[in-house]
Amino acid sequence: MKVLVLGGDGFCGWPCCVNLAEAGHDVVMVDNLSRRKIDVDLGVESLTPIATVSDRLRAWEETGGRAIRFVGLDIAQDYQLLLELLRSERPEAVVHFAEQRAAPYSMKSSTTKRYTVDNNVNGTHNLLCAIVESGLDIHIVHLGTMGVYGYGSHRGATIPEGYLTVEVPQADGSRFREKILHPTDPGSVYHMTKTLDQLLFYYYNKNDGIRVTDLHQGIVWGTNTDLTDRDPRLVNRFDYDGDYGTVLNRFLMQAAIGYPLTVHGTGGQTRAFIHIRDSVKCVELAIDHPPSSGEKVRIYNQMTESHKVKDLAEKVAAVTGAQVSHLPNPRKEAIENDLIVDNRCLIELGLKPTTLEDGLLSEVVDVARRWADRCDRSRIPCVSTWTTTQAAALKATV
Amino acid sequence: MKVLVLGGDGFCGWPCCVNLAEAGHDVVMVDNLSRRKIDVDLGVESLTPIATVSDRLRAWEETGGRAIRFVGLDIAQDYQLLLELLRSERPEAVVHFAEQRAAPYSMKSSTTKRYTVDNNVNGTHNLLCAIVESGLDIHIVHLGTMGVYGYGSHRGATIPEGYLTVEVPQADGSRFREKILHPTDPGSVYHMTKTLDQLLFYYYNKNDGIRVTDLHQGIVWGTNTDLTDRDPRLVNRFDYDGDYGTVLNRFLMQAAIGYPLTVHGTGGQTRAFIHIRDSVKCVELAIDHPPSSGEKVRIYNQMTESHKVKDLAEKVAAVTGAQVSHLPNPRKEAIENDLIVDNRCLIELGLKPTTLEDGLLSEVVDVARRWADRCDRSRIPCVSTWTTTQAAALKATV
Repeated sequence: MKVLVLGGDGFCGWPCCVNLAEAGHDVVMVDNLSRRKIDVDLGVESLTPIATVSDRLRAWEETGGRAIRFVGLDIAQDYQLLLELLRSERPEAVVHFAEQRAAPYSMKSSTTKRYTVDNNVNGTHNLLCAIVESGLDIHIVHLGTMGVYGYGSHRGATIPEGYLTVEVPQADGSRFREKILHPTDPGSVYHMTKTLDQLLFYYYNKNDGIRVTDLHQGIVWGTNTDLTDRDPRLVNRFDYDGDYGTVLNRFLMQAAIGYPLTVHGTGGQTRAFIHIRDSVKCVELAIDHPPSSGEKVRIYNQMTESHKVKDLAEKVAAVTGAQVSHLPNPRKEAIENDLIVDNRCLIELGLKPTTLEDGLLSEVVDVARRWADRCDRSRIPCVSTWTTTQAAALKATV
Repeated sequence: MKVLVLGGDGFCGWPCCVNLAEAGHDVVMVDNLSRRKIDVDLGVESLTPIATVSDRLRAWEETGGRAIRFVGLDIAQDYQLLLELLRSERPEAVVHFAEQRAAPYSMKSSTTKRYTVDNNVNGTHNLLCAIVESGLDIHIVHLGTMGVYGYGSHRGATIPEGYLTVEVPQADGSRFREKILHPTDPGSVYHMTKTLDQLLFYYYNKNDGIRVTDLHQGIVWGTNTDLTDRDPRLVNRFDYDGDYGTVLNRFLMQAAIGYPLTVHGTGGQTRAFIHIRDSVKCVELAIDHPPSSGEKVRIYNQMTESHKVKDLAEKVAAVTGAQVSHLPNPRKEAIENDLIVDNRCLIELGLKPTTLEDGLLSEVVDVARRWADRCDRSRIPCVSTWTTTQAAALKATV
């Protein structure tokens, strides 16, 4: 199948590209390299030394991989080029990772808030518009986030896959039952953009019949897949800084270099997780099982397990002997929450979850240890705050 | 009170500016004149000969009005200027009309779809961002639309003001009751942008405590208010073209020039209506009754009555003797729907509805007759279609 991977150079995008190529798809990687450029702006680098796009693609072919083509393009800016690309490539599926994906970065300043909204909304909308204008029947596989549901008020209920059945009490005492898009409660500007994406998909699916699978992903951990392990030039990026590093990878990396594990607040926050290997597998499963014509937007919860942040810290400490350090929380969020998630759709399609118990924790620690000399410790603290009050408090402690 | 009116030169904005000035507020009109420029692009003009902004403001002062200042600014593009304006003016309230507001225009082409999303989302988000960055406690009064609720599936239930109480059936057979933002079902790209605005407001209210009143307005009819009637240079715009003209004003204008009333489809579509006099009064009431600090987004249904399109056509025909013409519907929407709307909030604040029975129908016909020679009949048909199938069908009939 011909597949375009938008944002194919990123942390999820790159292992996804090689996985799809290995599965026999004809993959075109599309990226504006914004993730690498944001690293330049922030003065940070991936802990792992990632190769340039051309070196990655050459190495992939040299190690026997099916060729992947690269197109440099900003989908949020270059609408005509995107439309021409769809018309000339005529893909059956487009995987859409091309969004600014860090919550702390999205809260850093008015500039990063505005960039995140502008880039993510216009990127998604341009893609939808271009598919309509092309007249092609293209399946969009989009990376959403578990964060659209919110973490505040589920009170023990299971989070369904995208749609919630509710009963609306009527004036005559009866109840009207309907299935609605699950109400959203995003925890950052970044998460908010994914709730906006949902409405864009809903509308273009209804009006133009665009087929969409929206993957509400948990927090990804791990670094490499079997395929990116094939050659050092294929190594995936590993973010450990306070903006782009995600909680479990940060703990593992902190453990590797002897830095106390940075738990924000009580650590009572429960979040959903998935290993990068499972993440790329889920995208492949979604491509292989597209919605039918006329089907509403398909939403899957792309996660394999839930954990409290403090339990993760303790687990990493137990494996590695690291210390745990409790810091003020720069985010505005519930101190503590439960999280029970329905993820049967992807399991039924064939996903075999890779869980924390599988020894992969130490694999990540090994990766982090190997590149420990590349770590800039000054970039570990989370300095992006959610509100002006928190910003002032942080300033006062420095 | 110091009030900025963003989009203060538009059809709702202009009568709102003079009404707020008359009520004693210190009004700053902010506009990028996009509405006049879109007229240039479309090759149409307001039926009424509207004066330039400077002539309008001079005439307003010459007729005894409290001075209104004008700032030319594009809130979706000029973030820094917007921020500086908030900092220097320190308004207590900002009325936000600065969005592309025509559903047919938003469906015209990929260019107008993309403009509508880019302009509306970034405009609203820039305003929210700038208020947070300014540190000022500013009340936003935003013009939403009744169209966020959708017109498809209410099945006789009353549409509440923004929030819906639902019961979520639990695994143990109990029901969990909660109040959610009413599920949205927009009928065009334009309406979709107002559902995105809702989520922006929801998030910034939750995270930063921004106080917002969102006015979900029905279709506005009428032209002038007592204040814009004071002097010919104060006349409000009157759109009759297929993109910007709204249904009732179009019928009245068509009747005035002897053009058959253009009913799309069966005319079984029920919509909510409000006269421009009531619309400006509602904005004033919203400004005078701001939400308290910490209060969630306040949502009012700004409409006074509901009618089926065919009943409106019959009413106008009865008053004027016009013919009714049934045309294919260029929109994708339910053929027929009911619409029962709760609008108690604004009534309780003091709104006295101006209804269709009040003789204002003939007032609008008089306005239209007076300027009938300015009408370009070729601009009356609705040529913007909702889907490529409809576009092809329309082309085939030409």
